[in-house]
Amino acid sequence: MTQDKKPFMVAVEIPVSWGDLDAFQHVNNTVYFQWFETARIRYFEEIGFLDHLKATGVGPILAETSCKFRLPLTYPDTVTASAQAMDLGHDRFTMRYRVHSAEHGRLAAEGEGRIVCFDYRGNNKAPLPDPIRKAIETLEARR
Amino acid sequence: MTQDKKPFMVAVEIPVSWGDLDAFQHVNNTVYFQWFETARIRYFEEIGFLDHLKATGVGPILAETSCKFRLPLTYPDTVTASAQAMDLGHDRFTMRYRVHSAEHGRLAAEGEGRIVCFDYRGNNKAPLPDPIRKAIETLEARR
Amino acid sequence: MTQDKKPFMVAVEIPVSWGDLDAFQHVNNTVYFQWFETARIRYFEEIGFLDHLKATGVGPILAETSCKFRLPLTYPDTVTASAQAMDLGHDRFTMRYRVHSAEHGRLAAEGEGRIVCFDYRGNNKAPLPDPIRKAIETLEARR
Amino acid sequence: MTQDKKPFMVAVEIPVSWGDLDAFQHVNNTVYFQWFETARIRYFEEIGFLDHLKATGVGPILAETSCKFRLPLTYPDTVTASAQAMDLGHDRFTMRYRVHSAEHGRLAAEGEGRIVCFDYRGNNKAPLPDPIRKAIETLEARR
Repeated sequence: MTQDKKPFMVAVEIPVSWGDLDAFQHVNNTVYFQWFETARIRYFEEIGFLDHLKATGVGPILAETSCKFRLPLTYPDTVTASAQAMDLGHDRFTMRYRVHSAEHGRLAAEGEGRIVCFDYRGNNKAPLPDPIRKAIETLEARR
Repeated sequence: MTQDKKPFMVAVEIPVSWGDLDAFQHVNNTVYFQWFETARIRYFEEIGFLDHLKATGVGPILAETSCKFRLPLTYPDTVTASAQAMDLGHDRFTMRYRVHSAEHGRLAAEGEGRIVCFDYRGNNKAPLPDPIRKAIETLEARR
Repeated sequence: MTQDKKPFMVAVEIPVSWGDLDAFQHVNNTVYFQWFETARIRYFEEIGFLDHLKATGVGPILAETSCKFRLPLTYPDTVTASAQAMDLGHDRFTMRYRVHSAEHGRLAAEGEGRIVCFDYRGNNKAPLPDPIRKAIETLEARR
Repeated sequence: MTQDKKPFMVAVEIPVSWGDLDAFQHVNNTVYFQWFETARIRYFEEIGFLDHLKATGVGPILAETSCKFRLPLTYPDTVTASAQAMDLGHDRFTMRYRVHSAEHGRLAAEGEGRIVCFDYRGNNKAPLPDPIRKAIETLEARR
C-alpha cells in the first residue's frame, strides 16, 4: 500500500489538538477516522457528490472502513489527511486515505473506506451516478 | 464473520446519545470505534492487562482496526458492544468486536483490531506476557 | 445553587468511557457539556419540544451555557445527568443541570443553559409555544 | 464583554470539520469548548505553565467555564480561537475566550474560564507560581 508515493489529489491540513490525546498521551484512534472523514468530505465536495445528494437524493454511505496506525502521534503536530478514489464499481468505490505527520516528516497512518451509493428517498442502493463517476475519473486522471 | 452466533465474553451496554448523530442524522462512523474501544478496554481490565501495564510498562497498542457498518443507527437506541480475543501470536493478538442494536434487535456493526504488545519503557515491541495469555485463554475457554 | 437538594425531574444514567479521559487522566471538560446535552435533549423529548419543532419549525436554540466542575472524574464511573427548566420568559427559559457521580456518591458538576425559542423557517426568534410552556409547568409541578 | 475590540495575545486558527456538525446541521456546542481548550492550552504553553507542571507538579485546573453563542456556525468555515488571562488572584485567574468566524467575518462566540492552581503531588490548591504570574503579566502588557 505504501509503495505508491505519488500524493493523493485531495488533501487537507489539520492541526492536532491537545484534546485529541487520550489517557495514554497519544492521539486517540478515533481521531484518525475523523481525519479520514475530513478528507473524504473534501473529496466529495471536489467531485460534486454532496450537491448531487441535495439535488437527487442519491449520495454516499460509508459501508466499511479501516486504518493502519504506522506511528503514534502526539501534540503538537500538524497532519495532512489525503484521499484517493479507486476501483469504481457499479454502485460503489474504494477510498484510500493517508495521514502524514509534519512533526515526524512521514506517513503516520493509512486506511481505506468502501463507499456505496444510496438513494435516500427510495431507501435502497443506487448506481454510481454518471456525473460523479466522470468527476472522479477526471480528478484521478490528473494525478 | 457473522456465522458464529455465540455471544462474546465481554460486553458493555451503551446508550446512544443525541450528540452521536452527525449532519446526516445517523450515528457518526467514529462513534463505532469509540464503542469498540469501550469494549476493548473492558476486555483489557477483565484480563488484567492495564494493571500489568502499570506494574511492568508492557501493555497493548492498537496497530490496526476496521469496522463493517451493517445498518445505520440513530437516536434513541442502546447498543451492546462486545469483544473477543483470538489468534494469539508471539507478540500480538486479534480482537473481534460486535455492536448490537436494541432498537433493531440485530447486529449493527462488526469489526476487528490488531493488538500488539509494547514495552513503553524500552520503547519497543514485547512478547505477549504469560499471565495475560493465560487470562485470555481462560476467559475465552468459558465461551 | 447547591442548596436545593430535591432531584430534578429528568435524569439520564451514563457510563463514563475510558475515551472520555484526556491526557491529564481526567474526564475532559467538554464531556460534561455532552452530558448536559443528553439530559437537555431527554428533557425536550419529555415536554414534546422536538416533535413541536418537526411539526411547526419552532424549536430550541442554546444561547449560552456554563459548568462548574465540583470534582475531577475518572474511569470507571457512572454519572447521572439531570435537568430542570425554570425562569420561563416570553421567548426563553433557563435549564439547570447536575452531574452526580456514582463512584464518589456526590455532585460532580452543575451548570446552566439559556434556551431561546427560534422559528427555523422564518429565521427569527419566536415566543415560547403555549403547549411547551404548559408541559414544562406540568412537569416541574410534579417535583 | 464585546466592548473591548483589541485582539487577544494568543490566537489559534482552526478549520471547522464536517464532523463538528450535529443533527441540527450546526457546529455542536461542545465543539466551542474544544476550541476554547485549544486556545487555553496554547496560552499555557506560551507562559510556560505546562513545563512548570512537569517540573514541579503545580499546574492549572479548569474550575468553571461558560460560553455565549453569538451566531450558529456551519461547515465549511475557519475559526480563530483566542484567549486572554486577567484578574490574577492568589491561586487563580480568569481566562476570556473569543471565537471569530472567517465565513461571517465576525465574533461567533465568547466565553470565560476560571483557572485554579493545583498541586497535583500534594493534591491541594497552590498559589499561582511567581514565574507564571510574571509571564502572564509580560504577555498581557504587550497587548
